[in-house]
Formats: sequence, C-alpha cells, structure tokens
Amino acid sequence: MDTARFLRACRRQPVDTTPVWFMRQAGRYLPAYRAVRARASLLEICADPALVAEVTLQPVEALGVDAAIIFADLLLPVPGLGRSLHFSAGEGPVISPPVRTAADVAQLRQPEPEEFASGVLEGIRLVRRALDGRVPLIGFAGAPFTLASYLIEGGSSRHYLATKHLLTHEPAAWHALMERLTAVTIAYLQAQVAAGVQAVQLFDSWAGALSPFDYQRAVLPWTQRIVAALKPLDVPVILFSTGTAGFLPLLAATGADVISVDWRITLADAWAAIGADRAIQGNLDPAALFAPRDDLARQAQQILDQAAGRPGHIFNLGHGILPDTPVEHVRFLVEYVHEHAAQPSPSLV
Amino acid sequence: MDTARFLRACRRQPVDTTPVWFMRQAGRYLPAYRAVRARASLLEICADPALVAEVTLQPVEALGVDAAIIFADLLLPVPGLGRSLHFSAGEGPVISPPVRTAADVAQLRQPEPEEFASGVLEGIRLVRRALDGRVPLIGFAGAPFTLASYLIEGGSSRHYLATKHLLTHEPAAWHALMERLTAVTIAYLQAQVAAGVQAVQLFDSWAGALSPFDYQRAVLPWTQRIVAALKPLDVPVILFSTGTAGFLPLLAATGADVISVDWRITLADAWAAIGADRAIQGNLDPAALFAPRDDLARQAQQILDQAAGRPGHIFNLGHGILPDTPVEHVRFLVEYVHEHAAQPSPSLV
Repeated sequence: MDTARFLRACRRQPVDTTPVWFMRQAGRYLPAYRAVRARASLLEICADPALVAEVTLQPVEALGVDAAIIFADLLLPVPGLGRSLHFSAGEGPVISPPVRTAADVAQLRQPEPEEFASGVLEGIRLVRRALDGRVPLIGFAGAPFTLASYLIEGGSSRHYLATKHLLTHEPAAWHALMERLTAVTIAYLQAQVAAGVQAVQLFDSWAGALSPFDYQRAVLPWTQRIVAALKPLDVPVILFSTGTAGFLPLLAATGADVISVDWRITLADAWAAIGADRAIQGNLDPAALFAPRDDLARQAQQILDQAAGRPGHIFNLGHGILPDTPVEHVRFLVEYVHEHAAQPSPSLV
Repeated sequence: MDTARFLRACRRQPVDTTPVWFMRQAGRYLPAYRAVRARASLLEICADPALVAEVTLQPVEALGVDAAIIFADLLLPVPGLGRSLHFSAGEGPVISPPVRTAADVAQLRQPEPEEFASGVLEGIRLVRRALDGRVPLIGFAGAPFTLASYLIEGGSSRHYLATKHLLTHEPAAWHALMERLTAVTIAYLQAQVAAGVQAVQLFDSWAGALSPFDYQRAVLPWTQRIVAALKPLDVPVILFSTGTAGFLPLLAATGADVISVDWRITLADAWAAIGADRAIQGNLDPAALFAPRDDLARQAQQILDQAAGRPGHIFNLGHGILPDTPVEHVRFLVEYVHEHAAQPSPSLV
C-alpha cells in the first residue's frame, strides 16, 4: 500500500492533508538552479545524471513539496527522431528541419530511450537513492500531439497552422507521425518506470489549440493507447494540458488516473466534468504567486474549499512556475496548503 | 420588427437560415484591403471616414456575409486617455508609457468619442447610407479588461503579470482604472449607436487569461455596467472572448444578449453553459479555413448540427480570420452555412 500522500491522492485514497508539488518546481526562479545553469546548458544538464539529480532534488529540500519530478526536457526525443534541437535565447526551442510532409514523417527514426535520455534514466536511479523514500518521484514525457506540433512547426507556435494543415490535408501522414511518437513515448515512459519513477505525467501542453472535434479525431486515440500501455505497470498516469476546460470529458476518456487542469475553470466545475472516478490536479494561476500573501492565501483557499475534503486532489498550479516567482511565496503556499486543506470527510472516504 | 436575419438571430427570433459574418472579415487576407493598406496605415484608415467605409464594405460585397462590422481598432481610445499608440511591424501595438501605478491611473484623461474616433463615427454614417438596409452594421469596442491589459502591459502579453500585479497589489487603482475605461467604453458605444450601428460587440479578447475567481471580482461588475447602460438603446450586445470555455456562466451573467465562444468547446456544450435564454455566436476554428473544402464543410456541419435548428445561432469563427486565409474558402463557407443550416424546428420557435 502507498504511504506517500501524493501517490495516495493519485489513487483517491484518504490522505492526512492535500499533497502539493509544482510544475517547473526545479527552475529559473530558484537561486540554486540558476547556479547550475550558469555552468551548464539545459541539454547539458539533461545529459549528466549527477546534475539531473542535483536540480531534481533542489526544490524538495527548498520547498517541502510532496513529490519530486525528474528534471528533463519534453523535447529530448527530438534528436533521436532525426531532427536537430537547440534552444535560442528568448525564442524557445528550434527544431530543424521541420516535419511537414508524408516523406518527412516516413524518414523519422524510432530511437530507444537509452539513446536520447540515458542521463535522465540514470538520474532517476540517483534521485530514488537520494530521496530514500522521503517523497515519490514523478517521471514525464511530452504527449504525441505536443511533440508533433513542435516537430511540424519547428518550435513554438501561435496558431498551429502547419500542424493543422498536416492533420487535415494529409491525415495518413498525421496518423503515421502520431503512431511513431506514441511508440517512442510509451517506450520512454516504460524505461522511466523501470528506472524507478513512481508516477508519470504526460504533458499535452498545447492540446488547448484544438477544437474538441480535432482532439477527438486526431489526438484522443493515441493518448488512450499510451495510457493503456502503462496500465500493467501500475503507476498513476497524470494527463496535463492547458486551455482545455471546454472538453475535459475527452481528457477523462483517455483513461488517465489524474487530470491536471489549468486555472481557467473552477476546480469544482472541472471535477464535475472529469467525473468523480478520477483524481484532479491543480489549479492555481501561476501569477497568483506574485500576489500579496493574503491574496495568494485567498486564491489557494477557494481551491481547497472546492475540493471539499474529498480524496483525490493534488494541489498544483495550472501551468509551470514562472521565472521570476518569489521563492518565499512558493514556500508559503506549500505550508498554507498543508495547514489549511480540509480533512477528508468520513462520509466521502 | 427586424427583418435582417443577423438581428433576428441576436434576439432569438426565427430566421430563414443561419446568419454568418466573420471577425476581421475586413483584413489582410482580402486583396482589396491590402491595396488600401498599401497607401494608408491602420490608424490613417481609422481617421478617414471614406477609407473606413471602403474597407468596411469590401467583405460585404466580396463574401455575401449577413452583417458588416465597422472598421476600427480596439485601441483607438488610447491616445485620448493620454498614452501614445503605435503599431510596430510584427510586434503588434505599443502603448507608452505603460500604466502601472495609482498615480498613472489618476493621470489618465477621459476623452469624448468624437476626440479619438471621429473618423469611425463619420464612417458609420457613410456605411449605413451605402448599405441602404442590405445588411445590418455592427459597432464595437474593446472591453475594459482587455483595454486595461494593453495599457498596463504596454502592448500584448503572454502572462499578464503586470495586469495581475495591479489587480492584486493595488485593488483601488485597478477599480479606478476599470471605472474610467468603463465610462469611456459606454460613451464610445453610445456614440456609435447614435451614428447608426444596429448591434455592438464588446471585445474582451484576453479575458481568458483570468481565473473565474479573478474574472468575477475584477471584470464582471464593469462589463455588467456597460451592458446595463446600453439596454435602453435596444441594440443587441455581443460579448466576445477566447479561452473562457470554463466560465461561460459568468459571461452570461454580464447580461449580454449574445455570447461569442471560441472553438475549444462544442457549440452544444457552450450553449448549455450559457443558457437557452441567450443567443450564441461561433464557433469554428479559424484554422479550419485552411483545410480542404470537404474537411472545412465537415467542421462547419457539426457546428450547424449542434445548433439543431434552434433560433439564436450566429455562425462565426472563434476568433478573427487569420492573415493568409484563402478568400475562396471564406466565400465557400458563407454559402455552405446558408445552404446547410437546419431550418428552425416549429417546436423550438
């Protein structure tokens, strides 16, 4: 039986208080992380197990969160697929050349996780040893749609026109691409579990660019396949996205154990849409961490109130911690959630 | 009694077929518009009633849409408020200096509509004469939150941190700013109605940056005030936003007659959330206009099917037409909607 409150909440088991962790809890807002980044690039950190472990553990020590998440980048599989990846200052990731045609898709390689993520996988082993059971370790991967959009657009995008072009003009190529990325994602997450992660989060960060019609025809079947492939491993699967408040039932239809929702919907409305048979993660606005403490507390409290002591709530932001976030507010929020979460009501347990 | 199907749909009266128009239907994708822009900047067009009328009428002739919308820019009131406004190539609007403090807010002027929009107001008179009753003319203004975010951020923004900072750190200044912008918006829309517009759309384009908690405390009361102030004029009020699928009931609570929704929710789910006592506008993904015609038709048809012949649906995109949209697809879509909209069922009329 799980004893960690994070894992118990993922399984909707009673907890002593609401678990809390943050997306990008290892990141630029932490002085210790910036010190590491001063001597190593993002991709250099990912390639070095000791550095992966170091930055993964920093927020656990600094913040008192209830889970660690392995440090890595969503786009690590890109070079293994046969495309170059680099990060330009201020511009975000650049993938070159972009994948635009059926021929481009056919040309992609299918890399093994050890090829593109050996630093991360070995980092997982180091972190598990260092944590020694204090808190669980979460693994993660980019979901096929989000990976596909990066490959097709060649980086970030505002309107995802090239992505939607492939989807509507070359549906066979689209499905071939999604099949390839689904296989890579399954193998990568399986390898992370084998290395020691105790839960996995699938980041479909840009799914909110889609209509429910497109999500259903072009994305849902592939995410369902990933969730189904992980079921035998018995680790909770968290599905993350933003801008999807209008089609949460489709996210629940993926079969994921936990649905992570952004701040553009109340937690109560989101949980009602997802269904009581799922756990929910969220959903504070990352900007709330810049508010005065009393206002931050009010915003956190109304989320806790909506969870109403029902097991299955993991407190988190609706998206990653922003770069200039005050560390002392993050620490305050962890303490606030632990102290003010309503205890599970016996009638709901 | 209104005879135009657009105005009848706004009032949920039976129509012969579903009316359709497009946000940014006058815009860069139209060769005739690009020809005008080759000799005049955006702000020069807005200042010249003849040019305003010319570009407003272009899509009515070219596309066969059921409404014209006066050509203008959301940010026209900015110079009148006492801030400079210019458009940098590719960067969007730049407002300078930004409004960041209570002192900045106190310093803002309260301009009369004739000061900042005389070209638009005179353009409205010209367009009404030229249209001669063929289709109705829609007026519009930026909603106070969206205007406030531009003023505070100094332009477009990704995370709206400065806006949320003012809102949480200086709530009195926030409310003073919203009060000022609300007064300017009411006066501007009243002047447009006096000049001849037959419906108005309030663009709260960036409301989807907010949680429902923040929308309710910081935005809703001001939008309610605008809608209430316009009620005696008896013109339909359309409220537009994007990324708000998670709190549509709060948009309905503004009192607006028509709620315009984006493509991140099915029309049926959106209408259920808004309530049957409101008309609905939307909600095709603007990217669908780049799809092959049969796919575009499928995407349009499933929206029409969801409206199920119930009066009160105005077909539109979920956001503005994108710059490189093929004109022939826009024209095809207008014809498709007119031909394939289900006739109102007698039992629902």
